[in-house]
Amino acid sequence: MNKLIHGFSKLSSEEKIDLVTNRFFENPLKSKQVIDLYRLANKTKQQVHERFSENTISNFLLPFSVAPNFLINQKTYCLPMVTEESSVVAAAANAAKFWYSRGGFQTRVDKMVKKGQVHFFFSGDNKKLEHLFDTHKSHLIKSTKHITHNMDKRGGGIQSIKFINSTDLLSDYYQLDLEFITIDAMGANFINSCLEVIAQEWNSIYNNSDLFSTSDYFEVLMSILSNHNPDCRVYVKVECPVNSLGQNTTEAHNYARRFVLACKIASVSLSRAVTHNKGILNGIDAVLIATGNDFRAVEASIHSYASINGAYQSLSQASISKGIFRFEMTIPLSIGTIGGLTKLHPLVNWGHQLLQWPNAERLMEIIAAAGLAQNFSAINSLITSGIQSGHMKMHLQNILSHLKATDEQRLKATKYFKNRKISVKMVEDYLNHKTSP
Amino acid sequence: MNKLIHGFSKLSSEEKIDLVTNRFFENPLKSKQVIDLYRLANKTKQQVHERFSENTISNFLLPFSVAPNFLINQKTYCLPMVTEESSVVAAAANAAKFWYSRGGFQTRVDKMVKKGQVHFFFSGDNKKLEHLFDTHKSHLIKSTKHITHNMDKRGGGIQSIKFINSTDLLSDYYQLDLEFITIDAMGANFINSCLEVIAQEWNSIYNNSDLFSTSDYFEVLMSILSNHNPDCRVYVKVECPVNSLGQNTTEAHNYARRFVLACKIASVSLSRAVTHNKGILNGIDAVLIATGNDFRAVEASIHSYASINGAYQSLSQASISKGIFRFEMTIPLSIGTIGGLTKLHPLVNWGHQLLQWPNAERLMEIIAAAGLAQNFSAINSLITSGIQSGHMKMHLQNILSHLKATDEQRLKATKYFKNRKISVKMVEDYLNHKTSP
Repeated sequence: MNKLIHGFSKLSSEEKIDLVTNRFFENPLKSKQVIDLYRLANKTKQQVHERFSENTISNFLLPFSVAPNFLINQKTYCLPMVTEESSVVAAAANAAKFWYSRGGFQTRVDKMVKKGQVHFFFSGDNKKLEHLFDTHKSHLIKSTKHITHNMDKRGGGIQSIKFINSTDLLSDYYQLDLEFITIDAMGANFINSCLEVIAQEWNSIYNNSDLFSTSDYFEVLMSILSNHNPDCRVYVKVECPVNSLGQNTTEAHNYARRFVLACKIASVSLSRAVTHNKGILNGIDAVLIATGNDFRAVEASIHSYASINGAYQSLSQASISKGIFRFEMTIPLSIGTIGGLTKLHPLVNWGHQLLQWPNAERLMEIIAAAGLAQNFSAINSLITSGIQSGHMKMHLQNILSHLKATDEQRLKATKYFKNRKISVKMVEDYLNHKTSP
Repeated sequence: MNKLIHGFSKLSSEEKIDLVTNRFFENPLKSKQVIDLYRLANKTKQQVHERFSENTISNFLLPFSVAPNFLINQKTYCLPMVTEESSVVAAAANAAKFWYSRGGFQTRVDKMVKKGQVHFFFSGDNKKLEHLFDTHKSHLIKSTKHITHNMDKRGGGIQSIKFINSTDLLSDYYQLDLEFITIDAMGANFINSCLEVIAQEWNSIYNNSDLFSTSDYFEVLMSILSNHNPDCRVYVKVECPVNSLGQNTTEAHNYARRFVLACKIASVSLSRAVTHNKGILNGIDAVLIATGNDFRAVEASIHSYASINGAYQSLSQASISKGIFRFEMTIPLSIGTIGGLTKLHPLVNWGHQLLQWPNAERLMEIIAAAGLAQNFSAINSLITSGIQSGHMKMHLQNILSHLKATDEQRLKATKYFKNRKISVKMVEDYLNHKTSP
C-alpha cells in the first residue's frame, strides 16, 4: 500500500478502478460494485462526465432539487439547487413562498467588472518604467486581439490597464492591473489567457528598451485573475410593512425587532458573522453548483468582501423605517451562463433551461435572491423556534434510512417525533419498541 | 408560469418532475428524459439519495476522482476527490508525487475545540446577572446531560461555559459562550441541541430569580454554533533542501526564490491573497465533498480566519532557511468522520474506506495536505509555465466533447494543441480543417 504508483493518470478508468480497489480495499470486488453502481450504463454519456476531471472513476451523486415560488423582479422562478445539507432547499422554498405574497425579491446588478494582475519586480528609476508603460499601453492591449476579438465584438474585453507601484507593500513590487468585462462568461480562462500574453509582451518591451542600465533589475513573476471582485456585484432586498410580518401588530413588531437585532449581532460579533454569512452561501452555492459555476471562486470572493472594512462582518442588514421592514445585501458575484460546464453537463443545461436561459446579469440576481432567502429562513428559525426543529425533521428521515426502517415504521416515527427531541439512539429505541408509546 | 405553487414539497418525486417539466419547459417529455437518465434504476437506492434533501427530483453528477501518492506523516494515501474543476485533481496528484520523494507532508492537529453561543440582551445590574450565572453554571451544563451522555463517555462534550459582557459592541448585548469537544463528529446538531437547551434553561433561571426588578429587561434572542473555529485547527508543511527543487543549483535556487516571492505577494496584496486561498480551498473542498463534510462551513471558517489579523491574507507561507525550503500553513478545520452522510452515502462511505477509516484528527491532516498540495501546484504553474497551459490541456477534452469529436479526431487534436493556444473557435476550426496542418 505504501509503494509509489507510476503513470496512474494514463490508465483507463477500468484499470484505475482495479488498481485502487485491489490495493486499498479488503474486499476489492464489493468495493468495485459500489463504484460501478454509480457509473452510467451508456458509455458515451459516462465519458462526457469522466472528462470533466482527471482520474475520474465514477460519478458522485448529490441531490438535484428544485425550490419553486421565487418571485424576483416580478418574474417567477423555480430554482435548481444542489446541496447535501438537508434543510437548505426546504428553507429556500419556505422563504420564497413567504415573500411571494409580499412583493418578492428586488435585485439590481451594480457593475460587472472583473480584474486580474501581472505581478512583477523592478529596481531602478520607476518614473522611467512608468513612462515605458504609458508609451506601450495601447500596444499591450492590442497584443491580446487574437484572444479578445470575439469578446470585443460582444461589447466586452479589456476595459483598462494600469501601472501600480506597490513598493510600499513589498520592496521592488509592481503590478499591471487590468479590468475586464466578460459579458455572460465567468471568464477565468479568457482573463488568464489575456494576462499571460500581456506579461510576455511587457517582458519583451522592457528587454528591448534602452532606458535602463544593466544594474537595474526587472522580473515578471506571475499573472492571474483575481477572485476578489468587489466591482462585480449585485444588490438584493425584500421589504414589506412591518404589520404584515405577523398575525397581529404586537407579534409582527416583536418579530421585526428581533430580526433586526439578529442582523445587528452578526455585524458586531465575529463568531456570529461567520455563521450568518455561511447561511447565505448555503443558498448561493446550491444554485452555483446546479448552474455549473465555480463555488470556490464565489466563496473566496464573498468572504473576502465581508472583511473589506477591516473586520469580518455580516453581509446582510435588516432595518425598520416608517413602518417598513427591509432586509438587504450587496455581494460580489462572478459567474457565467456560457462556457465551462454550461453546455456540457446535461443537468446544468437543464437548470439553465428551468431558469428560462438567464444571461449572467439575470443569474447574478437569481443567485443573490437564493442567498438572501436562505439567510431569511435561518434567522427566522433562530429567533422563533430555534434552528434544530427544522434540521432534525429532515435529519430524522436520514436516520430512518440508516436504520432501514420500513415505510410503515417511517410513517409512525415521523408522527411520533414531530414534537420530540431526536437522536439516532432515540429513534433506534423507538423502532425497537423500547419507547413507551 | 407566474402562479404560486401550493403544497409542492408534499408531492411524490414523480409528481414534482411532472409539474416542473410541464410548467417550465417547452418540451416536457425531453426534459423529463434528462431527469430520468440520472435517477438510479434501483428504487430503494434512489430513495436513500432523495432523502438527503427536500424537493429532490434527480441526482446531480460530479466527477468522483482519486489522487494517489499522498505521503502524509509517513503513511501513503490515495485521496477521494469530488470537483468539477478540470485541473484540480491533476494538480493534487502532481504535487503529491513531487513531495512523495521529498519526505511528504508533515501535519499536526493543534486543537479540536468548537464553539457556540447563546445570544441574549439584558439591561440592569450586570454584576447581579453574572452572579446568577456563576451560581447556576454547573446546573446549566447538567441540563444537557440527556444530549451529552454518549459524547461525555467518549471523552467529549461541553468543555466550558462563559458569561460574556458584549455591551461594548451593542447595547444590552451579552453572550453565553460555550466550548465543545465533539470527537469524531462534526457536531453541528449536537452543539445546537445543547445550546437550545441551555438557552431555555438560562431563560427559566432568570425568570425564577428574585434578584431583578420588573424594570430590568432580559431577552434570549437565539442560540447557535459558530463556524468561526480558530481553536479547531491543523498545521501542515512540506520541506526539502533547496537544491532538490531543480535540475541544477542555479535553477533550484531561482525556483525557491520565486516561490517565496509568490507567497509574499499573497500576504500583502488583497487581490492575490483571495485567489491564492481559493486555490487552497479547491483541494480542501474536493476531499470535503468526497468524505461527506459541509464545505460551506469550512469555507466560512477558513476565509474568516484569513482576515483574523485585520487584513485578509494568504493562509500559507514559504521560506528558505539554512538551505531548506519550507512551505506551510495553519488552517481551522471542523469536520467529522461519523454522523451526517458518512454512513448513509455509499460513495462517502467508500471514500472513508479508501482513506483506511480515518478519525476526525487524521482526516483533518489529510484535508490540510490536499489544500497545501493544491496551493503548491498552482504556485508552481504560475511561476513557471503559467496557469493556462495545464488548465487548457484539461479544458481541451471538454471542448472536444462539446464539439462531438470522434476518438480519432480527439487523438489528433490533443497532439496538435499540445503547445498551442486553445479556444473553442480554434478547436472548431481545426476539426473543420480550417487550420493549416
